[in-house]
Amino acid sequence: MSRTKVIDALRCTDFNKEITVKGWVRSHRSSKAVDFIALNDGSTIKNIQIVAAPEKFDAKMLRSITTGACIRATGLLVESQGKGQTVEVQATEIEVYGLCPADYPMQKKGQSFEYMRQYAHMRLRTNTFGAVFRIRHNMAIAIHKYFHEHGFYYFNTPLITASDAEGAGEMFQVTTLDLDRVAKSGKVEYDKDFFGKKTNLTVSGQLEGELGATALGAIYTFGPTFRAENSNTPRHLAEFWMIEPEVAFMDKDELMDLEEDFIKYCVRWALDNCRDDLEFLNKMIDKTLIQTLESVINEDFVRLPYTEGINVLQQAVKDGHQFEFPVTGWGMDLASEHERFLVEEHFKRPVIMTDYPTGIKAFYMKKNPDGKTMQGTDVLFPRIGEIIGGSVREENYQKLLDEIDRRDMKESTYSWYLDTRKYGSCPHAGFGLGFERLILFVTGMQNIRDVIPFPRTPKNAEF
Amino acid sequence: MSRTKVIDALRCTDFNKEITVKGWVRSHRSSKAVDFIALNDGSTIKNIQIVAAPEKFDAKMLRSITTGACIRATGLLVESQGKGQTVEVQATEIEVYGLCPADYPMQKKGQSFEYMRQYAHMRLRTNTFGAVFRIRHNMAIAIHKYFHEHGFYYFNTPLITASDAEGAGEMFQVTTLDLDRVAKSGKVEYDKDFFGKKTNLTVSGQLEGELGATALGAIYTFGPTFRAENSNTPRHLAEFWMIEPEVAFMDKDELMDLEEDFIKYCVRWALDNCRDDLEFLNKMIDKTLIQTLESVINEDFVRLPYTEGINVLQQAVKDGHQFEFPVTGWGMDLASEHERFLVEEHFKRPVIMTDYPTGIKAFYMKKNPDGKTMQGTDVLFPRIGEIIGGSVREENYQKLLDEIDRRDMKESTYSWYLDTRKYGSCPHAGFGLGFERLILFVTGMQNIRDVIPFPRTPKNAEF
Repeated sequence: MSRTKVIDALRCTDFNKEITVKGWVRSHRSSKAVDFIALNDGSTIKNIQIVAAPEKFDAKMLRSITTGACIRATGLLVESQGKGQTVEVQATEIEVYGLCPADYPMQKKGQSFEYMRQYAHMRLRTNTFGAVFRIRHNMAIAIHKYFHEHGFYYFNTPLITASDAEGAGEMFQVTTLDLDRVAKSGKVEYDKDFFGKKTNLTVSGQLEGELGATALGAIYTFGPTFRAENSNTPRHLAEFWMIEPEVAFMDKDELMDLEEDFIKYCVRWALDNCRDDLEFLNKMIDKTLIQTLESVINEDFVRLPYTEGINVLQQAVKDGHQFEFPVTGWGMDLASEHERFLVEEHFKRPVIMTDYPTGIKAFYMKKNPDGKTMQGTDVLFPRIGEIIGGSVREENYQKLLDEIDRRDMKESTYSWYLDTRKYGSCPHAGFGLGFERLILFVTGMQNIRDVIPFPRTPKNAEF
Repeated sequence: MSRTKVIDALRCTDFNKEITVKGWVRSHRSSKAVDFIALNDGSTIKNIQIVAAPEKFDAKMLRSITTGACIRATGLLVESQGKGQTVEVQATEIEVYGLCPADYPMQKKGQSFEYMRQYAHMRLRTNTFGAVFRIRHNMAIAIHKYFHEHGFYYFNTPLITASDAEGAGEMFQVTTLDLDRVAKSGKVEYDKDFFGKKTNLTVSGQLEGELGATALGAIYTFGPTFRAENSNTPRHLAEFWMIEPEVAFMDKDELMDLEEDFIKYCVRWALDNCRDDLEFLNKMIDKTLIQTLESVINEDFVRLPYTEGINVLQQAVKDGHQFEFPVTGWGMDLASEHERFLVEEHFKRPVIMTDYPTGIKAFYMKKNPDGKTMQGTDVLFPRIGEIIGGSVREENYQKLLDEIDRRDMKESTYSWYLDTRKYGSCPHAGFGLGFERLILFVTGMQNIRDVIPFPRTPKNAEF
């Protein structure tokens, strides 16, 4: 009596055969003549309908099968007479694995996302979160598949680190010191800490990724990253997942080609492999979702030097467009609303912005010969703003060292990084993509806390 | 002048065409008549030979091309006359991207692994570590592919957690409190910490994984895990990667089938996709490597109840076998040497040991009706000992609660976990595999610090 997954049962055309399905009850309607149980097992957003003739079953057992209960149903798979499904199971046996008391927090439909976040361990059993996390899985698969097929090696950079990648943000400290003892003794003895020094959780694997790329040729990281910023917004997490490819011998044009090809591949994968879930989200969350995804894969991205982008924004202001943050001119850092204006209103397609002013970006970016700009290549997306931050890396030892000094960074902290420029230095480039930003885009969800199973945010580390 | 990767150039049969290769110099031999440069770009363990006629190039430039330097070479791809390679490049142009000074730490061949660990950022450029990390990549791909094809969803459990999965080991604390201020003020104010309470790095994603499996049906985690144990051994890391699949409605026999099928798939993937690297390691590291891998995929694993295993060990002692750790009889926890005796000497193939005594394993394991044993299913491997730890989970709310109480664990910490048994509980099972243990097995390497790019161990968090 082997189990058939609901996704397979629904595709089955081998009627009048006995099958066994197992799952959780989404709804149970009873009448004198017949009971209908909608059963879901997580393999698909769709339910399979179990039809039970009340006279064949114990009445008390049947009544106990409420929303959220877990059961096995065995019976004939038949073509369905009812609307909304093609097959159903005419139950001959039902076994209850687990009842579901009335205080089940996902009992009612249409609860707010805020309410459901409090029950992040139970929201996984709802249609919306089932769809979101099946899509999240598929995006991870697309990412690994893309890089594997293109000759990149998955490279696991460390999470615990004694270096600060780029001053990218506030960090979490990692320690085995007993804090109560620190308080009592009045001393912080790092020589007694696990690593013998102060260590933190990484804010980026890029610098270590460059070590991999300048040996293996092309690598990508895909792992957790941390920021201890006290940001209570729908766009920030303290713990999130990043993808950071890094490629030896890649120049700026090839980097932009990679960024565009990669992200289109991921979006196309979702359209090809997550149709049922996308259609559900398109109906329930964002009616323009599928259309937006399709437009991204069908359009060439605009490749826009920063200087031209500033001109466009200044012209928009002259034409009467109101921005919340002022467009102060060349040298300014773009706010999300500026990026979205370029993408959503001006060009109406994704933009790769390039050649940012020296100084507003990280120390490792390669300088252009003009001395004023650096070879950054950020991808700006509708609804999201910056989805990818990329650049060619400065491969010249002396220039990189000068920039480290100019920024008052500690040279000794980066000696291992500088070694890549000292021994057989090579031109190279790479980018970073926040995984949850991609999932937000592909699912149409609005809050980043709803696209990771157990979000970590200020004052929240539940589950 | 687009670049051809060395792996593609070596396979090319389209001779007498101009190609461009880029990479790092492994060796450079000069004579009056001709220069031979062995070039590697990380795409394969094999080098491509660049042949340069000295009279065509600047003598000083040619001399500057030492081991470790990074160059571009353009020229005709021709069939090679020399031994050991089928093709070579007759260089017409050579460009030096980066010289390599004489103090390059990977200059000499045959350095010890201990020496190379100090230069973990440079050891990536050696043959051995190139092979190890290409295989590591391939194992990650095999894992994602296997689970994707079998309908599992990749599920990202949190790294920062306020709960202690199973008392599995010492934990690292994560904090944004300023330790100097803690020392000065004499107070530990967790209400001012980022999460408003004490938090740690996870020791296992299993409990959260069960939340996923009891909603999505079948999930797997694959991410970093942490243990703050002061173990300076070739088998322990403070930061390592774990794979933890969890499946609803799975029983003990199906779990053992999954464990065996999964690990055979991974090993077969290595044999099918990493042949050149395995042959190198077989020659340089372990002459029995490929034979061991092949035997694992060709043999049925022995399925051995713990009680029978103890009998075998006791018989071995009677027959004169000397163990370092005594075989004290039923109820004992097996040491690695006992596991390896069963696998390597007695059965001569992998063993799945089942039905361990209650008490020596974790609280969440399902109890057998005998009241004495639990449904654990650990896989024991040659050279490694325990490579997989698996079990059926206790799905009965009351039994699980009793076990939590019996072990003096804090019920309130596990309320969310207990909810899976309270609302629609289902039978389920899963296992955990230490990724680096798998890589040790597949590469034949001896020290776990040599199969992760930047190992974290007591007093060591470099790079």
